[in-house]
This record gives sequence, structure tokens and C-alpha cells, in this order.
Amino acid sequence: MTWKEYDQRVERVPVFIPVGSTEQHGPGLPMNVDSVIPTEFSERTAERVDGIVAPTIHYGAKSQPGSGGGSEFVGTTSVHGGTLRRQIQDVIGDLERDGARKIVFFNGHYENEYPIREAIDRHIEDGTRATFIIASWWDLLSPSLRDEIFEEIPGGFPGWAKEHAGVIETALMRHFRPELVREDEIVDDEADRTPSHIVKPAPTSAVPDSGVFYRATYGTADVGRRVVENVTDTLVSAIEKEFA
Amino acid sequence: MTWKEYDQRVERVPVFIPVGSTEQHGPGLPMNVDSVIPTEFSERTAERVDGIVAPTIHYGAKSQPGSGGGSEFVGTTSVHGGTLRRQIQDVIGDLERDGARKIVFFNGHYENEYPIREAIDRHIEDGTRATFIIASWWDLLSPSLRDEIFEEIPGGFPGWAKEHAGVIETALMRHFRPELVREDEIVDDEADRTPSHIVKPAPTSAVPDSGVFYRATYGTADVGRRVVENVTDTLVSAIEKEFA
Amino acid sequence: MTWKEYDQRVERVPVFIPVGSTEQHGPGLPMNVDSVIPTEFSERTAERVDGIVAPTIHYGAKSQPGSGGGSEFVGTTSVHGGTLRRQIQDVIGDLERDGARKIVFFNGHYENEYPIREAIDRHIEDGTRATFIIASWWDLLSPSLRDEIFEEIPGGFPGWAKEHAGVIETALMRHFRPELVREDEIVDDEADRTPSHIVKPAPTSAVPDSGVFYRATYGTADVGRRVVENVTDTLVSAIEKEFA
Amino acid sequence: MTWKEYDQRVERVPVFIPVGSTEQHGPGLPMNVDSVIPTEFSERTAERVDGIVAPTIHYGAKSQPGSGGGSEFVGTTSVHGGTLRRQIQDVIGDLERDGARKIVFFNGHYENEYPIREAIDRHIEDGTRATFIIASWWDLLSPSLRDEIFEEIPGGFPGWAKEHAGVIETALMRHFRPELVREDEIVDDEADRTPSHIVKPAPTSAVPDSGVFYRATYGTADVGRRVVENVTDTLVSAIEKEFA
Amino acid sequence: MTWKEYDQRVERVPVFIPVGSTEQHGPGLPMNVDSVIPTEFSERTAERVDGIVAPTIHYGAKSQPGSGGGSEFVGTTSVHGGTLRRQIQDVIGDLERDGARKIVFFNGHYENEYPIREAIDRHIEDGTRATFIIASWWDLLSPSLRDEIFEEIPGGFPGWAKEHAGVIETALMRHFRPELVREDEIVDDEADRTPSHIVKPAPTSAVPDSGVFYRATYGTADVGRRVVENVTDTLVSAIEKEFA
Amino acid sequence: MTWKEYDQRVERVPVFIPVGSTEQHGPGLPMNVDSVIPTEFSERTAERVDGIVAPTIHYGAKSQPGSGGGSEFVGTTSVHGGTLRRQIQDVIGDLERDGARKIVFFNGHYENEYPIREAIDRHIEDGTRATFIIASWWDLLSPSLRDEIFEEIPGGFPGWAKEHAGVIETALMRHFRPELVREDEIVDDEADRTPSHIVKPAPTSAVPDSGVFYRATYGTADVGRRVVENVTDTLVSAIEKEFA
Repeated sequence: MTWKEYDQRVERVPVFIPVGSTEQHGPGLPMNVDSVIPTEFSERTAERVDGIVAPTIHYGAKSQPGSGGGSEFVGTTSVHGGTLRRQIQDVIGDLERDGARKIVFFNGHYENEYPIREAIDRHIEDGTRATFIIASWWDLLSPSLRDEIFEEIPGGFPGWAKEHAGVIETALMRHFRPELVREDEIVDDEADRTPSHIVKPAPTSAVPDSGVFYRATYGTADVGRRVVENVTDTLVSAIEKEFA
Repeated sequence: MTWKEYDQRVERVPVFIPVGSTEQHGPGLPMNVDSVIPTEFSERTAERVDGIVAPTIHYGAKSQPGSGGGSEFVGTTSVHGGTLRRQIQDVIGDLERDGARKIVFFNGHYENEYPIREAIDRHIEDGTRATFIIASWWDLLSPSLRDEIFEEIPGGFPGWAKEHAGVIETALMRHFRPELVREDEIVDDEADRTPSHIVKPAPTSAVPDSGVFYRATYGTADVGRRVVENVTDTLVSAIEKEFA
Repeated sequence: MTWKEYDQRVERVPVFIPVGSTEQHGPGLPMNVDSVIPTEFSERTAERVDGIVAPTIHYGAKSQPGSGGGSEFVGTTSVHGGTLRRQIQDVIGDLERDGARKIVFFNGHYENEYPIREAIDRHIEDGTRATFIIASWWDLLSPSLRDEIFEEIPGGFPGWAKEHAGVIETALMRHFRPELVREDEIVDDEADRTPSHIVKPAPTSAVPDSGVFYRATYGTADVGRRVVENVTDTLVSAIEKEFA
Repeated sequence: MTWKEYDQRVERVPVFIPVGSTEQHGPGLPMNVDSVIPTEFSERTAERVDGIVAPTIHYGAKSQPGSGGGSEFVGTTSVHGGTLRRQIQDVIGDLERDGARKIVFFNGHYENEYPIREAIDRHIEDGTRATFIIASWWDLLSPSLRDEIFEEIPGGFPGWAKEHAGVIETALMRHFRPELVREDEIVDDEADRTPSHIVKPAPTSAVPDSGVFYRATYGTADVGRRVVENVTDTLVSAIEKEFA
Repeated sequence: MTWKEYDQRVERVPVFIPVGSTEQHGPGLPMNVDSVIPTEFSERTAERVDGIVAPTIHYGAKSQPGSGGGSEFVGTTSVHGGTLRRQIQDVIGDLERDGARKIVFFNGHYENEYPIREAIDRHIEDGTRATFIIASWWDLLSPSLRDEIFEEIPGGFPGWAKEHAGVIETALMRHFRPELVREDEIVDDEADRTPSHIVKPAPTSAVPDSGVFYRATYGTADVGRRVVENVTDTLVSAIEKEFA
Repeated sequence: MTWKEYDQRVERVPVFIPVGSTEQHGPGLPMNVDSVIPTEFSERTAERVDGIVAPTIHYGAKSQPGSGGGSEFVGTTSVHGGTLRRQIQDVIGDLERDGARKIVFFNGHYENEYPIREAIDRHIEDGTRATFIIASWWDLLSPSLRDEIFEEIPGGFPGWAKEHAGVIETALMRHFRPELVREDEIVDDEADRTPSHIVKPAPTSAVPDSGVFYRATYGTADVGRRVVENVTDTLVSAIEKEFA
């Protein structure tokens, strides 16, 4: 998109900012899962609401052992939360200056939520005329579809923290970008139960060696397709309501 | 405690740092609920493991509408996440310099979790000989007791985000510090369902006017007593295991 | 205090913020002397001017050898001046947003003065409708009472820097919270003369091993009582004048 | 690439980090020119030296009027130099922790040079075992090819600052990603002579309305092809020499 | 001095860094009084101990109403304390890297003391092999000479805070740089008594309109000469002792 | 200049801020070349446009190997770019508050350009009524005079990066402050060709041992005189145009 095309639309339409990460996702999924997913979701949703998709942020906030394996995994390349917060604050500042009034952060990495919130809170403190939506696919997915999907899986729904490189992320990658999935390396594994507390430095035993926290093999492309439909529908409704 | 007493014990025993907030908790509970609870828990646990309780941090990270009502409520006085992170990093630095090797953050305010994690992550990057536990009472409470308590309540367990100024916080305050509870103002109220997304600036309709998110009247002192026993037991076990 | 009670008063009355520290105060006084004293003073003054006391800040700016012993003493747990400055700036921001127009920082730790000033200066640069008083008890104490008290002590008044854990702090603790004083450990000691310059890293000889800089035994509860009356009177007058 | 594949190679091979921007590039080129170019160059070079290409940084340092049009153009979405510096410092930290010892920043946006340098300087101050190359395509292009190309163009080589959205960027986009070029909108324009000084806020007259600083029409795909070969050769040589 | 000359001496000799300010000093003294004085003192002392004088820092920390008139005076151009702290930390880092082991900050502006201390404290936390002296002329001046000088002045010694643009600063300027003194504008004035508290924003009545806080006319060049001798002697002794 | 004199003129006239560095300049020139030159230029230009010269900033942004030798040279004492940026932002803030509307940064050190720009960009984002000129002498020098001067020198004009401690800087110092030049140590030397890329940590071979990058002996005082006239004329014209 050229700047002139952008200029003609930015004041009217939603602008999507996909926020991802570079993080281990087991032996079968690429390290950019958390970036691919929100980028794909943003494009699909933008198409339905006539929105603009801004470039993806690929370096997310520090991966935590309990939800992604943490910095101990080679290949996980993160920024500090405070760094991501500053980046988002600067980006918002320029978007708003250029006229954007409807801004959607589509987030694919749990640890990004806090820095995105802090960035927007600080932006608002200085005054804003824009409205912001922060959307993470796991929150957008309807509980009923979630239950339906996990019903068929031995062990059921383990909570989102344990779903790292598990059923849904595998399903989404198989649906969105099958060519990036190493099918021969998709494995089932299982992280320990959700702990009652956090320990740092994280004991090496806390996370499966594979980096897979749950049953990746159950994440079929068909599951992916159903999740995409459901999540996109929910976000379209949210956008229509909140930006009305 | 004098510095000489501290000096004799700091290298051997766990040091507890209660991290709270100053935040609206409805018309019946004081604004320092999130500080009182981790302070009381820290003292009870410290007694059992021969620990030291450091002074409480009373100004927590920015309250969020979905989990505490947000900055829109008069009386909610917060610091930015980045500010809390710096404060904790400095405190950890001094504790470790003085010989502390077992450090427990007892957290009473959901929004503090991220800054505490980032502070410890940054501290560890520079090298550490200490082990850190981050403990929030809602994670320490055993799911079985939680279910037992909410079973008796119409509506059941609504998720922790909606439990702000609700059953358990009311119960804990009635148990710990009944003189701070305005019994005539304890009310039941209810926040909307957990939203699929976050909107900022937060619509005023998102949170009950009272600031109570759930059924405060069900939080009896007896419920508080059972929660305290359960949470303390869990934390004592965690301390024995992680600092072994 | 609940948020509703706060809401009804915050725009009209002074809000006190006690700022203390966690710092060695010799073998007889607890490490929270600098927090206890401004908290107690704030409560007594607030009572007289119908004010509100906000939660105490317990971690003060880096202790300096010449005025408190410095970071070399085990148990002294401080934050960098820049960290305290940010914390206060955030707190002021929320207080002013909620309507506070009369804000009193009651300071109990010399090293906090600069960060408090810088925080307020930066806040004012962004525009303010509030008025701020920074009050430290040693400045509020009238010179005549000070001279009267030290007249009776061999060596006389040594300057405030040398009064750390000395006559007045001991007196105030005996008056405010005698149960926190280890009477059997109250000792007289003496720091070297006020130096003509500062050396860093501080030579170990610069400060008495006890951490007491002057004659703690002379700080009777009765001296404490007289100081409290005098300081509170002065502050009440200042509040009446400056917030008129 | 999965983390296991990365793990097996990261210690031996060069890691490329493309650093781009989101910036107006006239009516014919997309706003991500400065990101596409270094990403494509990185991939081609990595192929020849068996390197790894890390995710692209899409939000570059504040565009300056004299070299890109500046923030006044709608669509130019930048971060402050200090923000980019922090981001790069965090990324380097994780790369080095994971074993990377040969790190190449391929830069596509002039304004990024300084923050990249400052990030590496600060990283080195804390100690490093890695070697870093900062490569910008305009510096890699041999002066002889440059002269050859511009010889044929009326006006000749105007200096790199004036080549924004001009001959070479157009040529590279036509070569790398012709589908992103709006051929009907490629125009020649001309920025004023290189000024003797910088004025801020920038007068609106300083930059052509189109955002094109020079003769875009002369940037054929064939010119692009020759530049790519030349630049890639130079960088391969540099890598072989500096990482020997 | 060239870098080669510096290189031959930096590891052995003291390096002086004069830290000043740009601040109103009444109608008779220039705005750079606080820079001239420490620069001149540094040069005289360096001559006696074979030291090196580094370039002067001319923009000091925010002037405070009680000790210099504050930012309300036109012409007072300051930096925030945190900014000065960063600057000094960077400078120290380079000095120590180059071999300096004896570093003297000669300070001419009261408000700089805290940032200088914080900078050195942070530097030491990261490890240092250098020793630092912070010297402010008012602390170096012997109490006996001070009393001797003020004895002859109606009103006596008013405390250092009130001596801004008063007796000693006028005397030092007349001695060091008489050509910068506007003799016809040297006036006596008087700031109110030392206040028991600080008010911000500062009431306009707090400081004399002239910017002179005390009796400038009594600051003769002869007084200046005596002060210089005394202060220099004290500092030479301190240097010999602390860097032994 | 006293504050009263400043007060009468600041709103009408240009204020010059010389920004220099402390950096090796070979065996014949002092380390403050980059500070002396912009200070002298500022004074001469200010005289012609009735301007005010503010105090010089002596510690510039981190010297880079390719343009000044880098931090590896003993004697080069720099601050990080972010530090200089903050300092300038604070100074601008105070100047504008005091009424300055025409602000000229005269820069003598290449590496300062970016931080000066970022400081002004951030200042403008918060709103400004002032206009800023950033002037570096190498950009102000007319290409025709430059060519005339280098025509006579074997090797010709090597590009500004290689002119460090070379022809023009030597010429300017001989013209402005001959007493600071060690004539017996002025040497010709030559840095390698402009590199196609930057390597960090910089190989020791990248820069001549002398620290001289080009032919210093050709920089006569007469060349200096012609440069000064030319640069000053250009800047006077720029000031008349931009501040009209």
C-alpha cells in the first residue's frame, strides 16, 4: 500500500497491528508461530471490515517458562516488556497523528498483553481521540467451540498456558501456512500441571524438552479452519460494536 | 527488627516482600485490601518457615478495568508497570548484596505480576545467586477448596478476574482485619461476563458502579480462615521444595 | 478508608504521603524508623487539619554514608533516586486526576528530598492545579526547641547529618512506638566530624560500626513528645498558610 | 525454521537482522520499501554464506525530512531512535546468549544507522564475544557501478540523501517485488539541493509533495538486478573477511 | 592538552571535573558564576597536585527556589537531575576505561550534589577501581575562616542556602574574573528566613526580585582571595589523604 | 551576561548552543577541537546577527571509529547518544519557557547530529513555538570553496568522515586558537578508504595510530580564515531566511 492510498482511508477504517514473537514452538512448528497467526488473522478480519494491516511486530516480550518455555530455549529472541511498551507507544503516536481513530492490536503472544496495555494507558494519559481494541485469539475463541474441540482430546482443555505449541497453534499453522509445518516432527508432549507459583531462575524440569506443552497432533487443519471462522466472527462483531 | 538481627539471619532464611496496591474495593472494603492481604499472608507464612517480612510495597501497577476497575475509579492510585519494575529491581539488588538467597514476592494485585517478573528477569540477566518465588494467593489456593467454597454460591466461581472485591477478598479481610470492613456497605454486585477483548479508553459501562465485581456478602470470615490455612500450607510446601 | 469516603473528601482536604526508608538505625532501633516517624507525624497532623493519609512509601532513596551509613550496612534496602522520583511522579499524577489539590509529602529520610523535588518539578512542567508541601521533621522543628534540647547534652547539637539514629530519632521512636525500641541496645556513639568532602567508595572508617551517629541514650520519650508537639504545630500553620 | 534447526547452526553461521521502516516512498512504491529491500538482500546473502535470517524490524527510527520526508507525511510510522536502540540491544542480548557470534544488521533506512550503532556500543561495553557488521546497501554498492548507473540519468548522482524513492529504490523494488510497484504512479520529481543546514519544524516546501526525491522512472528492474549482484558480492566478501 | 599527553598521565594523576550551572546570579554577576568558580578552583588545585582538568559541565541540575531562585527566573537553564546523573555516569565510564583512578568532582551548584552522588553510586554498583571525591567549595571552606568573614557583616552568616549571589560568590568572582562583574549592579538584598518547608509551585514572594539572596556588596576581592587559599588548601589535603 | 540582560533580549534574538566533544584529534591538536570550533563560530555569527551564545556542551555523543577514532582512543570521553538527547531536550525546554523562539545548534562533532535531531523532534511533538536550526560547519562550507581548498592537496577531498583531525580542523584551530596547536606534532596520516560497512568491535587496524585521518599539515591558518568567512556568511544567510 502506498502512502496516498493509506492517506485516503486511515481516518475512517480500523488499523490492525499484529504483535507476535520469535519463540520456540517445538520441533514441528517454526519460531514465528506467534507472528504468523496474528498477521493472518489481521488480514482476514481486515478484509471483512475494510481495514488496513500495519507491519507486524516480530520481537515480543520476554517469553515466560510457564507459557512458552522462557529464554532458556535457544531460538527464543525477545525484548523486555518495557522495550515493547515504548515501541507500541511510538507507533500509536504516529498512527493517531496521521488520523487513525480505530486501532486494533491483534496479539499472538500471551506475554505481550501487559506491555500493550501499559503503552495504551500511557498514550491515553496524554490525551487521545482514538479507540483501541486489544484482541488475543485465545480470548476471542468462543468457550463453546473450545469445549467442542477439546472434548475429543484425551485430557481435555488444559488451560491456555499449557496450550503452547499444542492443539490450537498447530491447527492454526496447518490451516494458515501448512508449508511451514514439519509434519514429521509434530509430537504430543505435556507440561506439568499449572503450578501454584512461579520460580525464577526456572528449574529445567519445568518445561518439556521438546518445547511442546500439549498434544500437538490433535491440531488438525480442520480444527484450525473452525477456530479461524469463530475468532474472526467474534472480532468483526467486537469491531462493529466498539467502533460504532 | 534491627539491622543486627537482620544481619544474623538474612543469608539463611526466606525474605518475603508483600506487593499490594491502592485500589478501590467497593463501598465496604478499604482501598488497601491488596496490601493488607499479602502482608498478613507473608507474616503467617514467615512465622512457619522462620522467614523475614520486608516492608510492603503499597502502590501497585496500573489497575485494569477488567480486573480491578481501572484508573477511572477515584481512589485508585497506581504506578506504571515500568516504575514498579524498577523499584523491585533496586530492592532485589540490595537484598542480594546483603546476602539474601531465598526471596518470596507475595503478590496481592493481579496487575503486579508482569512487572515483578520483568524485574526478576532483568536481575537474573545480570547474574544472581538467589532463587525467587512469585506467589499470588489466587494461584496458591487449591482448586478443590476453591470449588468447595463457590459451590455454595449462586452463580458459582466466576473466574479470578471477576472476583475483585468479591467473595474471597471480602472473606480474607473479615478474617484478617475485620475492623477495616464496613459491614453495612458490603454488597453483592456483578461485572459483565469476561469480555472477548479489551477496549481502551474503557467504556464506563464495563464495570459496576459500586466497584464490586461479584457477591461480596458470601465472603464470610470462616471462608477467609479456610483460605488462609490452605494458601499458607501450599506456600510453605513450595518454599520447602524450591529453596531446598 | 473506602474509595467512596475518599471520593467525598479528596478535593477539599490535604492528602499526606509519608515517605520513609528501610535503613539501619543502630542496634536499638528498627530498620523502619524513617517510615514510622513520617507516618505517625502524618496521622497526627491529618487529624488536626481533617486530612487523608495515603499509604507510606517504605523504600527510600539510596542511603548515603554521611547521613545514614550507606548501602554498606546490611539491612539498608534502598531504591535509586531516579526510581523513587518515578514512583512519586506516578502517584502525584493519580492523586491530581482524582481531584487532590493540597498534597503534603512528609519525609523521614534526608536522601528522599531530592527525588521528591524532581518528581514535583517534572509534574509541574506538565501543568498542575495542585499545591505541594514537602515537609521534613528536622526542618519543621523550631531552632529554639532544638537548642533547648541539645543544650542539656554533652557535645551539643552536632548538625542534622550526625543526628542519624541519635537523640531525636530515638526520642521520637520511644514516644511513638516504644514497643519497637530495644532499650537494652540503645547506645551512644559518635560519627567523625562533618567532612569537608565526600569520598566514594566510602572508607569503612567513616561511620561508627554500631550505625549510631550520636548520643541515642539522651533521646527520651519526653523529648519525643516535645518534638512532636512542636513539629506538628509548625506543619499545621504551614498548611493553613500555603493552602489558604 | 524450528528452534532445533536454529540450535544446530546458530553458533557457527552468520545471523542477519533486516532493519527497515514504514515510510512514505512516493505514489508508486509501497510504504514498506525500506523493509522489503533489506529482507530480500538478507535472504540472498544468507543463502550464499549459509546464514540465518531473523525476523525483520518493520518500524524504523524517525524519518527525517531531508532523507525521507519526515513525520509530516501521512503513513510514515516510526519509533524514536532511543526505542529502536533498546529493541536492538535486547535482541542482540538474546542472540548472543543463544550462541550467535556473527551478527549482521542489514539496514534499509538511513535514520536507523545511529540507533543500531548505539545499541551495539552499549552491548559491547557490557562485554561481548560476538562480532557485528552493520551493512547499508548504499554503502555496499561500489562507487564504480553507482557512477555507471547514474551516468545515463540526466542530473547524475544527486547524493544518497536525495535518492529517497528515487532511481535505486525503485529499481530494487521492481527487481525484488514487482507486484508491489504501482507502475502507473512511478514519477520523476526532485527535492531541493542538499541544504547547508537543518530546520525544524521542517518547512513544508522542503520536500516534493509526491514524496519522491528524484527520478524514479529511471530505476529499471535491470538496474535493480545489477545493484543486487554488486551489493551481495560486496557483503559476502565483507562477511568472509570480518568473521574469518 | 592532546590525547597523547593525557594518555601519559591519566593513570597516575587526579582528574578534575568542574560541574556548574547556568543560573541567575543577580543583576551584577553573570549567569555562569557556578561554572566559573569550580573551573577556576579546579585549575588552581590541579596545578598544585599535578592534576588534569576535564571540560566543565555547564548545565546543572534544576535550580531550586530556596537555593538559587528556581526555574522561574529567566536565564536559568537547567537539566533534570536524572539527565545530569546519566551524563556523569557516561563520563565516569569513559574516564575509568581510559585508566583514571583518582577522580574529583568540583561542584559549584548545590543542586548538583545529589545527581553526582547517584551517578557514582550506580557506577560503583557495576564495579570500580577508581576513588571519587565530591568537593563543593562551601563544604571545603573552614568554619573558622567563614566565621571570621561573616563576623564583619551586619546579619552574620545566613546559612549557605541564603548565600546565593551573596558575599562569597561575589567575592570569588571579583577575585577570579573581575571583568565579568558589573560593579555598578552589585546590590545587597535579602531572602526570607530559611523556611520550615518547601512549597511548589513556588510563591513569587519567596525570592527577592533581584535574584540576590544576601549582601553582595560585602564580597570583596580580598575576601575572595582568602577563600580561594583556604578552600584550595583543604582540597589539596583531602586529595593527598584519600588518594594515598 | 547577567540574567537581566538576557531577559531583555532572549525573545527577539537567536540563541546559539555550541555542541562539541572531548575526543582525540591527533598528536598536534587538543582534545577539545570539536568544542572550540563551534564555540568560536557561534560567537562570530552571534556578533553579526545580534545573537546570544549559551554555554558550550563539551561532552558529545560516542565517537565512532570511522569518523573520529572511537572510544578505543584514550582521552576520548563521550556520553551515549540517549544521554546527549536528554540533555538537549531539557535545555530546549528551559530556553523556550524563557521566551527563546530562534534557536541555533552549532555542532562541531558529527556523532552529535542524530541526538540533536531526536531531541528537537521529541520537543516538537509536545508542541513548540520556536524554530530550530542545526548547523554543522562541514555542511555550511560551500562546495566551491571546499573544492578550491582541496584541489591544492595531493589526494584531494577524501570525504568528511576522513577529514577528522585533517585539513580543515587543523586550519580552523590555527586560525581560532593557534596557542592550542602543538605545531611540532602536526602530521599527515591517512585512514583507510571509506569502508563499505561498519565492524564492531572495531578492528585496531581501522584507524591510524596517530588518530589523524588525513593531511593535517595542509590546514594553514589562511585556509582556516577563508573557511570561517564562508561558513559564517552561509549561516548568517540561513538565519536571516529561516527566522524571518
